[in-house]
Amino acid sequence: MKKYIAEVIGTFVLVFVGTGSVVVNNVTEGGVSLVGIALAWGLVVSAMIYSIGDISGAHINPAVTIAFWVGRRFEGKHVIPYIASQCIGAILASALLRVLFPDQSSLGPTLPAGPWWQSFVFEIMLTLILLFVVLNVSVGAKEKGITAGLAIGGVISFEVLCGGPISGASMNPARSIAPAFVGNQLESLWIYLTAPVIGAVLAVPISAYLRAGDSDES
Amino acid sequence: MKKYIAEVIGTFVLVFVGTGSVVVNNVTEGGVSLVGIALAWGLVVSAMIYSIGDISGAHINPAVTIAFWVGRRFEGKHVIPYIASQCIGAILASALLRVLFPDQSSLGPTLPAGPWWQSFVFEIMLTLILLFVVLNVSVGAKEKGITAGLAIGGVISFEVLCGGPISGASMNPARSIAPAFVGNQLESLWIYLTAPVIGAVLAVPISAYLRAGDSDES
Amino acid sequence: MKKYIAEVIGTFVLVFVGTGSVVVNNVTEGGVSLVGIALAWGLVVSAMIYSIGDISGAHINPAVTIAFWVGRRFEGKHVIPYIASQCIGAILASALLRVLFPDQSSLGPTLPAGPWWQSFVFEIMLTLILLFVVLNVSVGAKEKGITAGLAIGGVISFEVLCGGPISGASMNPARSIAPAFVGNQLESLWIYLTAPVIGAVLAVPISAYLRAGDSDES
Amino acid sequence: MKKYIAEVIGTFVLVFVGTGSVVVNNVTEGGVSLVGIALAWGLVVSAMIYSIGDISGAHINPAVTIAFWVGRRFEGKHVIPYIASQCIGAILASALLRVLFPDQSSLGPTLPAGPWWQSFVFEIMLTLILLFVVLNVSVGAKEKGITAGLAIGGVISFEVLCGGPISGASMNPARSIAPAFVGNQLESLWIYLTAPVIGAVLAVPISAYLRAGDSDES
Repeated sequence: MKKYIAEVIGTFVLVFVGTGSVVVNNVTEGGVSLVGIALAWGLVVSAMIYSIGDISGAHINPAVTIAFWVGRRFEGKHVIPYIASQCIGAILASALLRVLFPDQSSLGPTLPAGPWWQSFVFEIMLTLILLFVVLNVSVGAKEKGITAGLAIGGVISFEVLCGGPISGASMNPARSIAPAFVGNQLESLWIYLTAPVIGAVLAVPISAYLRAGDSDES
Repeated sequence: MKKYIAEVIGTFVLVFVGTGSVVVNNVTEGGVSLVGIALAWGLVVSAMIYSIGDISGAHINPAVTIAFWVGRRFEGKHVIPYIASQCIGAILASALLRVLFPDQSSLGPTLPAGPWWQSFVFEIMLTLILLFVVLNVSVGAKEKGITAGLAIGGVISFEVLCGGPISGASMNPARSIAPAFVGNQLESLWIYLTAPVIGAVLAVPISAYLRAGDSDES
Repeated sequence: MKKYIAEVIGTFVLVFVGTGSVVVNNVTEGGVSLVGIALAWGLVVSAMIYSIGDISGAHINPAVTIAFWVGRRFEGKHVIPYIASQCIGAILASALLRVLFPDQSSLGPTLPAGPWWQSFVFEIMLTLILLFVVLNVSVGAKEKGITAGLAIGGVISFEVLCGGPISGASMNPARSIAPAFVGNQLESLWIYLTAPVIGAVLAVPISAYLRAGDSDES
Repeated sequence: MKKYIAEVIGTFVLVFVGTGSVVVNNVTEGGVSLVGIALAWGLVVSAMIYSIGDISGAHINPAVTIAFWVGRRFEGKHVIPYIASQCIGAILASALLRVLFPDQSSLGPTLPAGPWWQSFVFEIMLTLILLFVVLNVSVGAKEKGITAGLAIGGVISFEVLCGGPISGASMNPARSIAPAFVGNQLESLWIYLTAPVIGAVLAVPISAYLRAGDSDES
């Protein structure tokens, strides 16, 4: 049960800070800037890994949970509760932002800037890269804790810098569901429900190939 | 006594650099930018954790001191001296900035950009998130020192990026008292004396629930 | 064979994210900014070091491979396969960016902003500094893994900030070959094939002098 | 002798990258931005600490050398050779920038933006804070290496963000001497030769008081 609460809290903080910085950027007409939004997303992921990584693994993303499950590193019985917890946390965050910014029609949803297929491929690639790093840094090394926070937070930041202006750099269905539902902007949501999961699952065999033979103590 | 001096110095440096970067941003008409201000706040907190964390715990924030005390991880007899030390350090920093920038009427106070309740809720949420991370990273892990500096400095930066343009992202009564008193801008100060403390105290039971059963050596 | 696949993937991710952020900066008319591009390059190098450093060494740069070989820290029989893997990964990344951005004539090539000799000297100096750090942080210290990611990622970021607007801050022949070939902008490519290799090789005797007598366990 | 060569190289890289980013910011009419300049300075200091910290201590700053000597943590016979090495490295860097940017009259000197006393006090305070952190993180903790790079690099960045637009945030006589001599802008140089040394020396008794009784193994 603690694991589920940790995922609710972690995803809540992720979406409150991440989409919150997007909303504040709109309110201030660009005052946060893309660099600021990218740093906010990366640093909040890093902080959640340090805070709840040892409790729930700090997935805070259904695509991460599914990839760990497909890679046989996560028990099937926890998959649905984890995803539900993540969605609950994300929606609570968007609901709070709705209350705090009653005049903002948009709550930081992810939307394609160009044609749908461009964002679809971007989300696959960005989540593939994210999970490639996640799966590689979560085995082996002794300094796992520190490295995971640095590496994965860094990935989130560079993916927002690279993909943010194109696809919104979601990489996370829960992150996209929340502002879409609470802000009632459901268009294109299907991209962010499918592409990150495809990208995440594609990372599993690649990482497994590279890590075949690694022992967990290595 | 060393602990108190460390808190005076730590809070002095925090407020000199943090509100100093705000003042310099005003002097240069935005030359520092929100990203620069957020990095300055985060990096100075991180540096103080590395410098005095092993002496005083590097609270440099009355809300942190109160939360540790409520969570029974800090002795009651040190609470008042810690808070006094923090306020002394902060006020000395604002006084020095007053001398260095005689033409600046404002010394980097925290003020609500919108309605008071919006900033009130923001400060509660931001300090709740800050203390959630502080309380989680300050137990258990062996690499405590490095991780704490990275995680907590990161939280300060992302909270300034997200909440700075709305509530000023104080999260710290001492940080708000100093420029308010020295710069004689007392309006709305009550928000920053109450909301951060409420948020900090709310983090205590949440973290205690998640960490119940953790041993300190884990 | 795993090493080669790791180098293909690492260089693919490097060029997809790095030159991708340059392309997206063009598409958004400066929305990413030089700071954003510098952070993207630095963070992606850091993430690749954490992800594949223990598999292939995370060279992802022919100049790094050549310098390690010249310094007798890398077997000669792997040099050509490593460089081939790096070029394959880089070209695949540029090809994918070509598909994703069909309207962009330019795929983030490196081009001199001023006279050729200025960029030539810049690339020598930047790669010399990069390899000086790489060769120094990859011996000795126990915390090798964490430090290498932080230090080398940091070098990439500061070199893009300093040299990006002058020479493009390539420091990497594979990074320059890919957008040049796929985007058909071959002018000045010779600078980026020669200068980084010269700079990298120059770092070898300097580092060897400073590290003479160091044992690997120190 | 290795120590001296390491200081020459470290200070050369520091000044080439740091003042280079200032020069490039001028050439590109603000393209690097204050945030970019601050990151470049902080990251290059961090990289030099990781690269040569175990050889020479990575002072790369006469004020640091003098403070360590005053604090009896550095042998007197090395003081003059260290300072000479730092000045040689810095001047070589400015000379190379002079060759690379023949049209730039200014090579990134430090100059007061307001009255001289304002910059004088700023430089004392900034160097005092820098040395306070340096002296505190260089004792005790086991993770000394990683922490020192993170903390001290961070200090440099936040001090450039806070003090850069006011005093130039030198904190380092060698860093100020080089562009002043090579670029023939000697006005106000006396501030940067005296104030950083005063600030650095003031940090010694403060840190000694806080660390009295610490053992080196603690």
